[in-house]
Amino acid sequence: MNFYSIKDAIKYEGHDSKNPLAFRWYNPDQKVLGKTMRDHFRFAVCYWHTLCWPGLDPFGGDTFMRPWHHMADPMEAAKVKADLMFETLRLLDIDFFCFHDLDIAPEGKNLKEFNANVTAIAKIFEKKMAQSGKKLLWGTANMFSNRRFMAGAATNPDPDVFAYCAAQVKHCLDVTKDLGGENYVMWGGREGYETLINTNIGHELKQAGRFLSLAVEYKHKIGFKGPILIEPKPKEPTVHQYDFDVASIYGLLKSYGLENDVKLNIEQNHAILAGHTFQHEIALAAALGIFGSLDLNRGDYLLGWDTDQFAMNVPELTLMMLEVIRAGGFTTGGMNFDAKIRRQSIDPDDLLHAHAASMDATARGLLGAAKIIEDGRLQAEVDKRYAKWSEPVNKAMLEKGAALEAIAARVHKDAIEPQPKSGRQEYLENLLNQV
Amino acid sequence: MNFYSIKDAIKYEGHDSKNPLAFRWYNPDQKVLGKTMRDHFRFAVCYWHTLCWPGLDPFGGDTFMRPWHHMADPMEAAKVKADLMFETLRLLDIDFFCFHDLDIAPEGKNLKEFNANVTAIAKIFEKKMAQSGKKLLWGTANMFSNRRFMAGAATNPDPDVFAYCAAQVKHCLDVTKDLGGENYVMWGGREGYETLINTNIGHELKQAGRFLSLAVEYKHKIGFKGPILIEPKPKEPTVHQYDFDVASIYGLLKSYGLENDVKLNIEQNHAILAGHTFQHEIALAAALGIFGSLDLNRGDYLLGWDTDQFAMNVPELTLMMLEVIRAGGFTTGGMNFDAKIRRQSIDPDDLLHAHAASMDATARGLLGAAKIIEDGRLQAEVDKRYAKWSEPVNKAMLEKGAALEAIAARVHKDAIEPQPKSGRQEYLENLLNQV
Amino acid sequence: MNFYSIKDAIKYEGHDSKNPLAFRWYNPDQKVLGKTMRDHFRFAVCYWHTLCWPGLDPFGGDTFMRPWHHMADPMEAAKVKADLMFETLRLLDIDFFCFHDLDIAPEGKNLKEFNANVTAIAKIFEKKMAQSGKKLLWGTANMFSNRRFMAGAATNPDPDVFAYCAAQVKHCLDVTKDLGGENYVMWGGREGYETLINTNIGHELKQAGRFLSLAVEYKHKIGFKGPILIEPKPKEPTVHQYDFDVASIYGLLKSYGLENDVKLNIEQNHAILAGHTFQHEIALAAALGIFGSLDLNRGDYLLGWDTDQFAMNVPELTLMMLEVIRAGGFTTGGMNFDAKIRRQSIDPDDLLHAHAASMDATARGLLGAAKIIEDGRLQAEVDKRYAKWSEPVNKAMLEKGAALEAIAARVHKDAIEPQPKSGRQEYLENLLNQV
Amino acid sequence: MNFYSIKDAIKYEGHDSKNPLAFRWYNPDQKVLGKTMRDHFRFAVCYWHTLCWPGLDPFGGDTFMRPWHHMADPMEAAKVKADLMFETLRLLDIDFFCFHDLDIAPEGKNLKEFNANVTAIAKIFEKKMAQSGKKLLWGTANMFSNRRFMAGAATNPDPDVFAYCAAQVKHCLDVTKDLGGENYVMWGGREGYETLINTNIGHELKQAGRFLSLAVEYKHKIGFKGPILIEPKPKEPTVHQYDFDVASIYGLLKSYGLENDVKLNIEQNHAILAGHTFQHEIALAAALGIFGSLDLNRGDYLLGWDTDQFAMNVPELTLMMLEVIRAGGFTTGGMNFDAKIRRQSIDPDDLLHAHAASMDATARGLLGAAKIIEDGRLQAEVDKRYAKWSEPVNKAMLEKGAALEAIAARVHKDAIEPQPKSGRQEYLENLLNQV
Repeated sequence: MNFYSIKDAIKYEGHDSKNPLAFRWYNPDQKVLGKTMRDHFRFAVCYWHTLCWPGLDPFGGDTFMRPWHHMADPMEAAKVKADLMFETLRLLDIDFFCFHDLDIAPEGKNLKEFNANVTAIAKIFEKKMAQSGKKLLWGTANMFSNRRFMAGAATNPDPDVFAYCAAQVKHCLDVTKDLGGENYVMWGGREGYETLINTNIGHELKQAGRFLSLAVEYKHKIGFKGPILIEPKPKEPTVHQYDFDVASIYGLLKSYGLENDVKLNIEQNHAILAGHTFQHEIALAAALGIFGSLDLNRGDYLLGWDTDQFAMNVPELTLMMLEVIRAGGFTTGGMNFDAKIRRQSIDPDDLLHAHAASMDATARGLLGAAKIIEDGRLQAEVDKRYAKWSEPVNKAMLEKGAALEAIAARVHKDAIEPQPKSGRQEYLENLLNQV
Repeated sequence: MNFYSIKDAIKYEGHDSKNPLAFRWYNPDQKVLGKTMRDHFRFAVCYWHTLCWPGLDPFGGDTFMRPWHHMADPMEAAKVKADLMFETLRLLDIDFFCFHDLDIAPEGKNLKEFNANVTAIAKIFEKKMAQSGKKLLWGTANMFSNRRFMAGAATNPDPDVFAYCAAQVKHCLDVTKDLGGENYVMWGGREGYETLINTNIGHELKQAGRFLSLAVEYKHKIGFKGPILIEPKPKEPTVHQYDFDVASIYGLLKSYGLENDVKLNIEQNHAILAGHTFQHEIALAAALGIFGSLDLNRGDYLLGWDTDQFAMNVPELTLMMLEVIRAGGFTTGGMNFDAKIRRQSIDPDDLLHAHAASMDATARGLLGAAKIIEDGRLQAEVDKRYAKWSEPVNKAMLEKGAALEAIAARVHKDAIEPQPKSGRQEYLENLLNQV
Repeated sequence: MNFYSIKDAIKYEGHDSKNPLAFRWYNPDQKVLGKTMRDHFRFAVCYWHTLCWPGLDPFGGDTFMRPWHHMADPMEAAKVKADLMFETLRLLDIDFFCFHDLDIAPEGKNLKEFNANVTAIAKIFEKKMAQSGKKLLWGTANMFSNRRFMAGAATNPDPDVFAYCAAQVKHCLDVTKDLGGENYVMWGGREGYETLINTNIGHELKQAGRFLSLAVEYKHKIGFKGPILIEPKPKEPTVHQYDFDVASIYGLLKSYGLENDVKLNIEQNHAILAGHTFQHEIALAAALGIFGSLDLNRGDYLLGWDTDQFAMNVPELTLMMLEVIRAGGFTTGGMNFDAKIRRQSIDPDDLLHAHAASMDATARGLLGAAKIIEDGRLQAEVDKRYAKWSEPVNKAMLEKGAALEAIAARVHKDAIEPQPKSGRQEYLENLLNQV
Repeated sequence: MNFYSIKDAIKYEGHDSKNPLAFRWYNPDQKVLGKTMRDHFRFAVCYWHTLCWPGLDPFGGDTFMRPWHHMADPMEAAKVKADLMFETLRLLDIDFFCFHDLDIAPEGKNLKEFNANVTAIAKIFEKKMAQSGKKLLWGTANMFSNRRFMAGAATNPDPDVFAYCAAQVKHCLDVTKDLGGENYVMWGGREGYETLINTNIGHELKQAGRFLSLAVEYKHKIGFKGPILIEPKPKEPTVHQYDFDVASIYGLLKSYGLENDVKLNIEQNHAILAGHTFQHEIALAAALGIFGSLDLNRGDYLLGWDTDQFAMNVPELTLMMLEVIRAGGFTTGGMNFDAKIRRQSIDPDDLLHAHAASMDATARGLLGAAKIIEDGRLQAEVDKRYAKWSEPVNKAMLEKGAALEAIAARVHKDAIEPQPKSGRQEYLENLLNQV
């Protein structure tokens, strides 16, 4: 299949290369802070935006005119897509991919047929993975596109949908395990509501918590080692989604005692729709012990919907990488692009340009973050700011035995009057820019 | 003091009254769903917007020119304000008031002097409360105006500020208890950050949780019966506030085991700044068991800051009251206006017009909500939507003993294929409008 | 065709009717301020949301499963839709409809075939209109769905698209005229850009202005009497749309001298996406002399995309009607719903519930606005606020002959020191609520 | 006065300097695209944020504790500020400054006294400017802080305020001219409304247009050579401001025939509050021929108010500089920082760090933009995209003599069917990142 214009994989050619299909910064084997770039990022190509989305938006249709979207036999189309996924991974020198069950195989007359289709394509994957060494970062079940999910999946008012989802997730988890997937993801695309007036929010939250518990129990039963990852998103297509943001999900996990089995897959575009920066969500997840994986796209701050653009902004990616490194880097997680080329980018090679450009930008983010860490001045400023907390009298206030009235008494006795100190924000922003 | 133009308290005069200072819908002793309006609402006047704010905004100064803002002796001014608070309560026939320590008394040279000032005014309150029967809905400590709090209160990088806050909260809790306050509120106005680059988010969250625990422990020691209420707000003045919304705070409470001692004081304007409707936040808090009290103002959906306008929108107030009733109504909580007249509303009577108008609008909201409940059709639709969950096989899925694989097996065995049903949103919206 | 459950047109049955498919407030022949409700509103059903949209959103497909979306012959489907449009108008007792060319007839192999299809359906319309007395509020050309328009229509970088649009608009204007359409609309759905980096904004604005001029000249040539209406929208699907809002379009019209031939079709949801209230956009258009027609849907203030919900909010509709009446009411314009039922509202009757409910809500808005006008107190307050401008010395400042230095001299001579007066916002809000 | 810690002006020391108070990229005499950096930027320090704002926000007071804010004699304080402005310019090696009348001198008992105070400080400026060679980029009148302007300045319902403003602007224009100011600015901080219900929008727009005309006429009379600049802002503190954005103001200028005398002073933070990128507003102003000057701050995309932070984001500044260069660079305009250090940045040197850092970041933006222009590939792509418009048959469509029907005929005759071409957005974004 000659989908792309190139035959040879894209290579690192150094900062000054003028070859439009080369890496200028992403050098997979270059070590940064003791780890190769390849291992820092664990990049993954996503099936849906890359191979399934035909370029439609709410006001217009297919612009891409991909051949496989116009084939008569859906299983034939599925095979073409499978070939192309591995070709894309090869050309981009990317190790991982991700999918929804519905991305890789067509629905049949019923769930049984759908499962069979998914399994058939998974068999093809297995062979290709063995040949190529490519790996599955995560699998997930699409429980939002079909009309049966229009009022939610696990949080549907109709328990038949809950049951159906259980059956779908079971199969998808099985397949993910069989393929050696490193994580299993749940994105609650329609787990929320359109209007509160027909919704029992308490009941739906209970359904959400219970469903997640069932999945966790099953994962243990079958010996799936990776975590289940939830992907926060505040809204769209729903008016309100229960997995609003990192903090919301943490509350749910604590309620059901799932905070050790479930981690988060955080996306930049979802973060900003919830009113947070990407780095905030990562830092918070790390602080709460639930940092898992990333969807590395970017949204448009001036638009109110998910634009899922390829990440290109080096200063933002630097701050993001700084938090990833502070969080200890990825274990099972990785960086799934989850980005789509603009619907006007109709040339096949636009897919390669987009991924390679974003890989380069992320590599520059890593190099910047590493410099900041090696420079040490930023961390030193932060440490200095909190330094007094390591004094015994202060440390004690955060520990058992402290009492409000005792602290109050000390304040009066010692006539403590706190002295404000500059937060030095502009100095630190300059420091970041310099480094 | 002849601050207002009227001497007699505002009275209910029926829907057709043309008297601009009369209630047309708020009839305190009218029973609705078996409870008087007075008891449904438990209205409270807030000190800060009503008596302390001089009309300034970030681009201009004092427009109100209140006499007490231009008096030489701050304790004299504090007494004038105290008189006026009780006069305002009398004229509006409102039973409760709320304050920050700094609203009622001036800072002195140090905390000791400040505490003494607060106590002195509290003594005046005591007398006035005894005479008038007026009550304190809640007190709170202002830990955001003074420059010592510029980098946060309990979450300040400087432990001296943490200690100082402990001393301030202790005194304010003591005073609130002495005045018979029904709740104690914490609004974390600066508990957040300006920039993540100088912030240790994990440490600050630990400070937040610990401080709250200290306050809860102290409350029990002194026998303060009411709950501690946290007021969610996502940002402003901070870039990010830890008490972002109901769901965020729930996570914090679960982490520290405080979900039985701490409830929420929810504000409409803060809700919409976080991307939620007011009714969502109430319904969610109720579902999580942490609904406490309300700040009944309204924001402007097209502006990105806290406008704290008086609530006037009857359909919104109807939906709000519906959730309050569903949540079981208030126990210790109530409806604090927390609203400020526009800075162009410079006539003293504008304060009365604003409160009375909002009380009338809220009363209409209650009457509407009661009609919806009595009509029963809305609830019947919702119940029907979730009805299948009461069937044993479905109920069992949410209970112990259920397993993903067993549910999946049943789906295949019974060839379950869920059938979508109309959500009937427009029909229900029409129903609400009719009633 | 038995699409809906009812056979008889919906009728006014008074406020207390419990019949779910009855008007409770919309009484077409009731006179309000000297004009029937029918003539105040000039309601129109839109083709696209009502008959063409299958319920898809960016994350899921067809939920409605309308028979005509699954018919083999597109012209047959077009005829079914035509029948159903007139049946819908009959059942709702609505006089007008609106369409895009692509809504009513399928594209063919080329523009010629498409035009022929459009004409064929228009012939059917003609007959049905003659029989039923129903009328066309406006027609418009869909120049955004087909991939040829992906980079814009008249503002496309490719002049072939500009030419193609000229041909399409010509035909659609001809058809609209033949059907007695009262206006012709242009919605510049993709007249904007995705990214400034590949865009020549100056050139595209010139294309926009020129195209509009060509259309106006042609309209005069063929004797089309109604205005051309532009529909402002700030973004979506584009990142930036040139017809951002009323004020932006006014600048374009002034540049090309088109302010007398072109009016605006204003939509609530587009207004709020641009950061304005609906009433602001109407009042501004009226003040600038370019108020034309309305798209009467509503957006969700907390969502950043076009939700196009049916308008149900009575207080908002009251303020809207107040501005419409102040603007002198409609001449050729009217109220096109331009609203879609939620994608979960899959029952055919949901379409009737939605329209009828919105008609009732709008009728209540009119009745409220009429009461406010008849009451007179609101207008009297506004007049009083500006009253000093009718004094000769003040009036003169706004007229020829005034000079900055002369006014300055008078200020010093008379020691003018302006005295602030209360804006009375809360009093007026209360007045609105009472009435 | 030893306000800052350094005595010698900050100097360019090259990219690798570790001196925190040095320029690393801003090299004033370095030529870029044939012009020195100094001349490209024409940087200006603003009086208000730098010397007048004490660090207050809506929830807290003075954090900076500047000595001059606590001096008894306001004219003495004004002189201290004047000294400090010139010291700041010297240390930062910046040539220009900007002020509001109220920034530089205190109000007196009446306008006459205020004018005298302003004149007295202006005399001091004159001397200092002669000695130092520093220049005035623009002056402006503060017509929003005093309570007399609470309901607007020129658009106030009270004509006395309009007159008062005329007197104030006259004096401020005189002073600006006497000081050799290169522009005169009008920011309509309160030229808008709080609520439409007490507002006559048509009358207020007429006031706005007339006032601007009076100022333009006066400017010509006194021979003030520079343009009047209007600064767009959509809202805050008002709910709606008439000078919403570039496109809105253009309509106003066209209405009053002022588009040749009035240009725009565009601010990044105001642009994003209006829903536009900074580069959009610059490109649009340039396309409309009304580009004047810039306020170079940055807002926070996730906050809904004016944060006025120092611009530090290099990729954004690159795109901004690209548009400035395309617009032909500045003539009378320049780059006023209009930025405030965060209220936690309480050290005097924070002011120097902030300005120097932003100058460095802007210099990097210029260097990047120059590289892009010299590289030529981006412009070549854009030119190619529009190339067909230079073919005679296409060009003719935009010129007199073209007719819709003739173009339509050609489309049919030639069977024109436009062929979509890739917009290549990701490729171009990569190109920008590389360069």
